[in-house]
Amino acid sequence: MTDLRLKFSSKCFNGFQKIYSHYSKVTNCEMQFAIYLPLECEQYPLPVLYFLSGLGFDHIDFIEKSGAQKAAAQQSVILVAPDSSPRNTNIPNENGEWNFGIKASYYINATQPPWSNHYKMFSYITEELPKIIDDNFSTLPGERGIMGFSVGGHGAFLSAFKNPCLYRSLSTLAPVCDILKAPHSAHALELYLGPQYDSNWDEWSAINLASCYEGPPLHILIDQGSADKYLKAHLFTKEFMEACEKSGIEIDYNLRDGFGHNYYFIKSFIEDHVAYHARILHRFQMKNSKF
Amino acid sequence: MTDLRLKFSSKCFNGFQKIYSHYSKVTNCEMQFAIYLPLECEQYPLPVLYFLSGLGFDHIDFIEKSGAQKAAAQQSVILVAPDSSPRNTNIPNENGEWNFGIKASYYINATQPPWSNHYKMFSYITEELPKIIDDNFSTLPGERGIMGFSVGGHGAFLSAFKNPCLYRSLSTLAPVCDILKAPHSAHALELYLGPQYDSNWDEWSAINLASCYEGPPLHILIDQGSADKYLKAHLFTKEFMEACEKSGIEIDYNLRDGFGHNYYFIKSFIEDHVAYHARILHRFQMKNSKF
Repeated sequence: MTDLRLKFSSKCFNGFQKIYSHYSKVTNCEMQFAIYLPLECEQYPLPVLYFLSGLGFDHIDFIEKSGAQKAAAQQSVILVAPDSSPRNTNIPNENGEWNFGIKASYYINATQPPWSNHYKMFSYITEELPKIIDDNFSTLPGERGIMGFSVGGHGAFLSAFKNPCLYRSLSTLAPVCDILKAPHSAHALELYLGPQYDSNWDEWSAINLASCYEGPPLHILIDQGSADKYLKAHLFTKEFMEACEKSGIEIDYNLRDGFGHNYYFIKSFIEDHVAYHARILHRFQMKNSKF
Repeated sequence: MTDLRLKFSSKCFNGFQKIYSHYSKVTNCEMQFAIYLPLECEQYPLPVLYFLSGLGFDHIDFIEKSGAQKAAAQQSVILVAPDSSPRNTNIPNENGEWNFGIKASYYINATQPPWSNHYKMFSYITEELPKIIDDNFSTLPGERGIMGFSVGGHGAFLSAFKNPCLYRSLSTLAPVCDILKAPHSAHALELYLGPQYDSNWDEWSAINLASCYEGPPLHILIDQGSADKYLKAHLFTKEFMEACEKSGIEIDYNLRDGFGHNYYFIKSFIEDHVAYHARILHRFQMKNSKF
């Protein structure tokens, strides 16, 4: 069993916000994650909802700025926010630029050294971390949801589309809908996947994955701000929604008037998202009469 | 009229979070403040609630981490968070230590050069800033409340006790109840007020001011965490409450089980505080049928 070290703990609403550190065999370095544990989970297991941060943000930003703990306590959901990349890997320039390296893993598995020695975030998020969480905390097996903001929204799409039975619920806030198309991600993809596009890259395109999705019926909640400066050239929402429509993925899409691409947008709608996941994740639970 | 420069604006819940910069004649330097404007204030004036940050925190921390905007929008209150000190004053060591200088003004008026050239935060908070806010935004004259966290709670006490008619409502979160007694403030007070205590310092002691308070009837809401590491040796809550009792100041005191001295505590109870102020500030308002 993975050895977890508690780095921080503080009561927050009706539960505890904690941060743990552990050695990851997948990313080959020390990793941190934040976990919010409603007091209820001392009595019985609860569903788990994962949040993936956007480019330049991490688990600390999420627990400090989103305000999601209140909804998690009210809705009886454990909330897990992984860090947004490996750190302290000694890869040259790991912390040199905003659009690759630390806080810019894009939640994919790198194939090119030196990045491939550590930047296996997709496997970390979808395999190693869920096992650590289920082994160490009072979780309801299988009752797992995932959400994300911006590039973290793309990470949530990848995680769910490539693992059709891993999550019961999926939502995103201002998602980048395709990192293969988004101009800011080109440099990172060249470093992580190779200098030239080839068809192997397609497994990291949410639009490509959505268009050939064949898993169980899927419904996605998406919120986006109308004043989001990336809306026109970086997010590819229309193309994504067309791909989903073709493969029968249902989307509940809300364009929120005047909101931007930042934590003021996230905090305004995170409660809706936590409640959305909770409704699905608690559907089969008889224990908790609230749902 | 003071020239305000908009530095930031973002929609947040049902209103806009903004940051302005302006030249302050009182602190003799450029100052910033954050203001949250519910959409309603485009139609009619609203009360204003001020928040003073604790040591080492500023207006940016408040608007990013407190989550207070939701309650302000729901309760129809404009929320103003001033910066916690002057900045860029060229005073040597202004940014050198955590317990004096930037983010550690203690909201008093310094008398000792070079600090006295800029560190006039008490006059800024209670005179210059309220005038700027009332001149530039749609505020209800006189409907003004103040709250604060930690040393900012002490600042809120000072502001209200020394100006009995300036605020209609007062509340604090984990307040330092006397900076003259608190060990961490000694060095700053020596720099700001002189190398030795003399009786002039007493005007900056909230316990002293509470004990001789003779203004209109006053009621204070105080929340504090039972796991606050400063509770025993730094906050002086018991002495403060005794002083208030003697002079007829009523206190609604809540000791919150397990909470610490941080933003996880603030975000857990800020909605209660905003609602508390709103009830008092809207009491005389007929316009808004909600109250």
